[in-house]
Amino acid sequence: MSGEAGKRFAPPAGAFSVTLPIRFSQCDAAGIVYFPHYFDLVHACLEDWYEQVLSFGFTKLVGSGHGAPIVHAECDFSVPSRMGDRVQLTLLVERLGGASVTYRVIGHADGFERFNAKIVTAFLALATGKAVPIPSEIRGKIEAYQAAAQTA
Amino acid sequence: MSGEAGKRFAPPAGAFSVTLPIRFSQCDAAGIVYFPHYFDLVHACLEDWYEQVLSFGFTKLVGSGHGAPIVHAECDFSVPSRMGDRVQLTLLVERLGGASVTYRVIGHADGFERFNAKIVTAFLALATGKAVPIPSEIRGKIEAYQAAAQTA
Amino acid sequence: MSGEAGKRFAPPAGAFSVTLPIRFSQCDAAGIVYFPHYFDLVHACLEDWYEQVLSFGFTKLVGSGHGAPIVHAECDFSVPSRMGDRVQLTLLVERLGGASVTYRVIGHADGFERFNAKIVTAFLALATGKAVPIPSEIRGKIEAYQAAAQTA
Amino acid sequence: MSGEAGKRFAPPAGAFSVTLPIRFSQCDAAGIVYFPHYFDLVHACLEDWYEQVLSFGFTKLVGSGHGAPIVHAECDFSVPSRMGDRVQLTLLVERLGGASVTYRVIGHADGFERFNAKIVTAFLALATGKAVPIPSEIRGKIEAYQAAAQTA
Repeated sequence: MSGEAGKRFAPPAGAFSVTLPIRFSQCDAAGIVYFPHYFDLVHACLEDWYEQVLSFGFTKLVGSGHGAPIVHAECDFSVPSRMGDRVQLTLLVERLGGASVTYRVIGHADGFERFNAKIVTAFLALATGKAVPIPSEIRGKIEAYQAAAQTA
Repeated sequence: MSGEAGKRFAPPAGAFSVTLPIRFSQCDAAGIVYFPHYFDLVHACLEDWYEQVLSFGFTKLVGSGHGAPIVHAECDFSVPSRMGDRVQLTLLVERLGGASVTYRVIGHADGFERFNAKIVTAFLALATGKAVPIPSEIRGKIEAYQAAAQTA
Repeated sequence: MSGEAGKRFAPPAGAFSVTLPIRFSQCDAAGIVYFPHYFDLVHACLEDWYEQVLSFGFTKLVGSGHGAPIVHAECDFSVPSRMGDRVQLTLLVERLGGASVTYRVIGHADGFERFNAKIVTAFLALATGKAVPIPSEIRGKIEAYQAAAQTA
Repeated sequence: MSGEAGKRFAPPAGAFSVTLPIRFSQCDAAGIVYFPHYFDLVHACLEDWYEQVLSFGFTKLVGSGHGAPIVHAECDFSVPSRMGDRVQLTLLVERLGGASVTYRVIGHADGFERFNAKIVTAFLALATGKAVPIPSEIRGKIEAYQAAAQTA
């Protein structure tokens, strides 16, 4: 596993990235991150993006009567990460549907990809649990982010 | 989300299943399981299958100089689970490759599917970190399980 | 650390115990349980005791308008546990106050103590967040348990 | 619980502090941090202190043939924390023994205490699992930190 460089990755200009430390608590008996914790890192990146890019934190989302649970998650793990590593996560919006958003979150370090996740969230009304269109304020901001984070 | 029944699921005869409780610690502010914990449940099912079906627990695996890290994981979350629920997980071997195994793990309760995960593990030698063929003792047992857990 | 036997422990007659497996996900790079996970095991024991002994699960508790957050937690870790171990947790009520309960939860295996935790929970009304007396139905059941689980 | 201010806390001059965000994943169905996660935050603070103050990260510690497992942990939880909060943790060395160190870690926000933890770690040789004196390089740095972080 060591020696593997993985493939190169450079975040597109305008893309949101966050750098997160790999903690002792996230590593398994082999000294590498236990895979469910990668999904936790991906979610942390999504939380920060909501807060910093959409200016619409999860608390505000819930306050508006909406939820956006994850309906699908997947990840390829190409290069392991170890305690003390600092991994950068870059979030891209892959598809903006009527009631759902598909995100691509790439974990990378030193210009090489470590993992590559896809997450699909579906908006719903908390009162009914039924799917609803993405609230327009959020949709507008996601469109603006998509335009800004376009790969050249 | 409540009221959704999801689709029916009945484990094939001969398939390995384990029933796990949903804990307070696994539920989020909306009272439903936070999605990375589902992958943790899936891994718990895999651990028990290694131990009980392959008679080759993870400790023995590591002792034999092998590792089997997860290189891909994905899951569809169709019906949420809540604290106090007891979810049954059924493990099927979807593909037995030369150095990798693809598992399908279905989470279900009362005959209805809750989540549906696919996990790919790749065997490697701990000393070199390089991919190696699945050890023959393990391969033989996986083949036997595949034959036994065949859907009619 | 291996070779350490710790001190002998036998659950008092009438005491509630639950046996929980040590999972891969709970072990750190040294192959032993990462200490916050012991508190998670203790909470799982408390959940099961509420459900099975008090017949008053957490969902019912919250439904009754009460919460019982942990206001103090402590634990001595005398003998480490490893993946695949099965640890038995025994719950004793150490002190039943007006609005709070102090629990002693002992983790043990093969008759020897592994860890020894003390947990204090305080009852409050969810609507106000203020401390309230322990609901009488719960108090009565805790008293009955204390009487039953008395060490001779 | 809301409205409770807790008691005032200001870090002593020279003390090490780290600010950590409260994540969605750390909050329970009541929207407040599930208590074992506080111990995880305390450990994260300890990791950062090892790295930044002792210049002796955990990886280096293990490389030197030593471990420093937690043998005792306790915490008072006075004011709950919620998703989106940013909590500051301040680490103080309460007692430097021959083979063990007792830490006090105070969690606070806006000048008020949220939680107050005590952690005891015991040094051991990884090869034997037996207690050993604190390595002199580490001891010297801890003494320097104690002197620097003295409350006036």
